[in-house]
Amino acid sequence: MWQLFQFPLCPFSRKVRLMLGEKGVEHGLVRESPWLKRDEFIDMNPAGQTPVLVEDSKGTVLIDSNAICEYFEETIDRAPMIPGTAVNRAEVRRLVAWFDDRLYGEVVGPLIEERMKKRLISRDPPDTRVLREAMKVANNHLDYIDYLLDHRRWLAGPVLSLADLTAAAHLSVADYLGGIDWRGHKQTTDWYAVMKSRPSFRSFLGERMEVIAPPTHYDKVDFF
Amino acid sequence: MWQLFQFPLCPFSRKVRLMLGEKGVEHGLVRESPWLKRDEFIDMNPAGQTPVLVEDSKGTVLIDSNAICEYFEETIDRAPMIPGTAVNRAEVRRLVAWFDDRLYGEVVGPLIEERMKKRLISRDPPDTRVLREAMKVANNHLDYIDYLLDHRRWLAGPVLSLADLTAAAHLSVADYLGGIDWRGHKQTTDWYAVMKSRPSFRSFLGERMEVIAPPTHYDKVDFF
Ligand SMILES: N[C@@H](CCC(=O)N[C@@H](CS)C(=O)NCC(=O)O)C(=O)O
Ligand SMILES: N[C@@H](CCC(=O)N[C@@H](CS)C(=O)NCC(=O)O)C(=O)O
Repeated sequence: MWQLFQFPLCPFSRKVRLMLGEKGVEHGLVRESPWLKRDEFIDMNPAGQTPVLVEDSKGTVLIDSNAICEYFEETIDRAPMIPGTAVNRAEVRRLVAWFDDRLYGEVVGPLIEERMKKRLISRDPPDTRVLREAMKVANNHLDYIDYLLDHRRWLAGPVLSLADLTAAAHLSVADYLGGIDWRGHKQTTDWYAVMKSRPSFRSFLGERMEVIAPPTHYDKVDFF
Repeated sequence: MWQLFQFPLCPFSRKVRLMLGEKGVEHGLVRESPWLKRDEFIDMNPAGQTPVLVEDSKGTVLIDSNAICEYFEETIDRAPMIPGTAVNRAEVRRLVAWFDDRLYGEVVGPLIEERMKKRLISRDPPDTRVLREAMKVANNHLDYIDYLLDHRRWLAGPVLSLADLTAAAHLSVADYLGGIDWRGHKQTTDWYAVMKSRPSFRSFLGERMEVIAPPTHYDKVDFF
């Protein structure tokens, strides 16, 4: 069976978990904290990052969330997550890169650093300037998602795709860490409620990261 | 015809140019300096980044170097650049992500900032501490490429792939900016000499960025 090396608040691992869920791929979870730089983990992935997906019986090691998602898109026909024509598929991949680079780099990464890593590792207080900036930029990201949903049923077009899974993965971590103010974003909120209610998503909404509690709306499908 | 919005020292644009060259896709070049944040360019790509590839007659706009490369891999059979089994393809994509994230983030991006942007935009002197660190990390990257080439003919396996194009694109920009010390890296140097001599590569070795001259070995296939 596949084993996913991950930690509960890694958005790239959440993306892979959503993909595996949609594709119906059974897998176990192995807790890995990349900041501990465990030797055996670095040997497996020189980048030292989660997620890594391993199938011991075949000796297969898959690294990088997008390489992993493309692998399952190629090998499992069920529930295409990069659907449509070559142009449609390019649009899915554009948005995946946008969320992985920008939403992660400007919002989710800083929140993880300030609210999770500082708590678990250095025990410094969070830098409120960084937090304020991340939450401001989060609002711009929600505006862009609202805009996409004004023109399309799902983020990349008429059907669910890896773009939705990627955005939801990042937003769910930002939301856990109290970085999202959903008010005034009706389109995004409605879309996110639908995402939250998918079986692939519900499987990790109940998980908690030690010492850090999410806001009360975090795992409620209707935000109340 | 396709038009590529790019500037000469953008490594992601170079990756796309190598891909288009290998696939035999004719294209024109449009000079775009993303740091100028031209309104029409932002309208085309909300991320404000090069490369963007446009086919006006069809109204197609492709954004993000990897989305673009996957598009041509899907639509043009000639010269597969993500070749082999699903596991082989995952290894190509792992390395592409590694070079795009780490080699760019730790070496090429800082060199562009210190040696190109500061020269063109702020006119501040480069930060020598940042430059020294980038060049030290560049050396680790060459060690890793040496290691890959000790075990494989090309970076991701027995045949040329997008991993080679991506690494060569980033290294060529770092080399232009004087950030690479090739000594002591025989495997990488031999591999890079072969990459440099490919027609897809030679097409841009002659280009220059205004005000910044590359070292004399830059466009010499044999490094002398
Ligand atoms: N490109 C990678 C990025 C993965 C990533 O950034 N993972 C973070 C955790 S969310 C990590 O392991 N960070 C530790 C580090 O970079 O040292 C992917 O898509 O899988
Ligand atoms: N994920 C993008 C990254 C492209 C990128 O970072 N381009 C740089 C130039 S080398 C850029 O446009 N930077 C300007 C900016 O980020 O504002 C890709 O692969 O195409």
